Amino acid sequence: MKFCRFKALERTCYGVVDGSAVVEIKGNPFNRYDLTSVRRPLDRVKLLVPCVPRTFYAAGLNYLSHIQETAEARGEEVNVPQKPDIGYRAVNALIAHEEPIVIPKDATQEVQYEGELVAVIGKRAKDVSEEEALDCVLGYTIGNDVSERSWQRSDRTMWRSKNTDTFKPMGPWIETRVNLERMHTTVRVNDEVVSEFPTKDMIFGVATYISTMSRYLTLYPGDVIWMGTDGPTHNIKAGDVVEVEISGIGTLRNPVIKEEFPDTTQEIQERNGE
Amino acid sequence: MKFCRFKALERTCYGVVDGSAVVEIKGNPFNRYDLTSVRRPLDRVKLLVPCVPRTFYAAGLNYLSHIQETAEARGEEVNVPQKPDIGYRAVNALIAHEEPIVIPKDATQEVQYEGELVAVIGKRAKDVSEEEALDCVLGYTIGNDVSERSWQRSDRTMWRSKNTDTFKPMGPWIETRVNLERMHTTVRVNDEVVSEFPTKDMIFGVATYISTMSRYLTLYPGDVIWMGTDGPTHNIKAGDVVEVEISGIGTLRNPVIKEEFPDTTQEIQERNGE
Repeated sequence: MKFCRFKALERTCYGVVDGSAVVEIKGNPFNRYDLTSVRRPLDRVKLLVPCVPRTFYAAGLNYLSHIQETAEARGEEVNVPQKPDIGYRAVNALIAHEEPIVIPKDATQEVQYEGELVAVIGKRAKDVSEEEALDCVLGYTIGNDVSERSWQRSDRTMWRSKNTDTFKPMGPWIETRVNLERMHTTVRVNDEVVSEFPTKDMIFGVATYISTMSRYLTLYPGDVIWMGTDGPTHNIKAGDVVEVEISGIGTLRNPVIKEEFPDTTQEIQERNGE
Repeated sequence: MKFCRFKALERTCYGVVDGSAVVEIKGNPFNRYDLTSVRRPLDRVKLLVPCVPRTFYAAGLNYLSHIQETAEARGEEVNVPQKPDIGYRAVNALIAHEEPIVIPKDATQEVQYEGELVAVIGKRAKDVSEEEALDCVLGYTIGNDVSERSWQRSDRTMWRSKNTDTFKPMGPWIETRVNLERMHTTVRVNDEVVSEFPTKDMIFGVATYISTMSRYLTLYPGDVIWMGTDGPTHNIKAGDVVEVEISGIGTLRNPVIKEEFPDTTQEIQERNGE
């Protein structure tokens, strides 16, 4: 089942995707819900991020060849995580399917995609075993962990490099029935495949992360865990369209644009030769 | 004015603290609100964290002598931040005034307090100047950035060391009228002063952080920014009571307890000599 969150007639609601239609639900997928008789064409509703997490978790480095290629590109030692230490991203940066990734005016050319599987927590979870862990997952969606590499190198934290507004596309919906062993992640820029990998090739899988995390912290319905990316990542620029497809879930698609904002007084003065 | 959030008769609401009473408000301090005629004794309501942030920001290293003492304690080079790169903490870890800090069973003795000023955002803010920045702040509260130092050294991220459930006491309320230049932070453990410093001695102040952050990201009402701590921090243990007082705001008080959970099969077997 595919749960989506959308806006129609100025109201925000959840729905179930049924072919090319959305069936509105009363309530939400994390608690009780009832199907209603309201059906809308999928291409006529504004999809929103499928949930706004209480805490936005991200594994970061979780695929071997991505870690190797990243280290080589930076001339650093290959440093493979020895245990599932989870990281964080920020809610301000989330955008929905089809919303534009906005590259800040002062970003370098090194703005890059990272296609990722996202686990969406469905039940409160504390101290769960690996065997129980996947029962706490409502379903899976797709994330694009957009990153500005020069800021990732220069800043003390990843606040700008990873959490600039619009740098975290997530969607289009939450698929509850997947086969984690057989999924395949494909990233396309302007219809050309730029990265693909078996989604399951993670160093630490979803169950391991959830079980380890829940030893120290409580996971809440709607929390998301971004599972990392594999392979090389490349620069994207204004005018590009990035798609992350994960078989069994769907395709997250976002155009890329450049930030525009009013010229500063200094720029106006410079242009006027003042 | 002091805004608090509390539970009374199974309802969660906001209120205004008036001496030893709370006046319930209709609405919330981030939008419209109206005072009601309901007054409750402050010591009879269960205070909650004054807000649940959409994004939970933390400056981390932001006072010179804390950075020096931390570096010395770890035998590391003193590394003073050159720019206000903000960091993050996680919502799962928040607890309210008077709620217990629970030390996990497998934590070392190195669980330490860090008393911090917390700025609470009141208005959506993007691209604000330093001059405009403080107008976006609703008020200030107090945080205790409890940290397990051995995990802080051993883990790739601060997920366990800083974000274990109950490691982020915040409260007791949001004070809207403060004088940032004259505040003083005092930490007491079991009534003994263990740390005190002028709150304003930050490397980068609240206005600088907000202005810099808002260049790349949108701040939302209810977001919090923890401003870092100064001086030495010491171990706390089960049975202790930690108070962080900031003059002009109030005192955040939390007892410390040790986690208890059912013994594992292995422990039972070991005890039984199996």
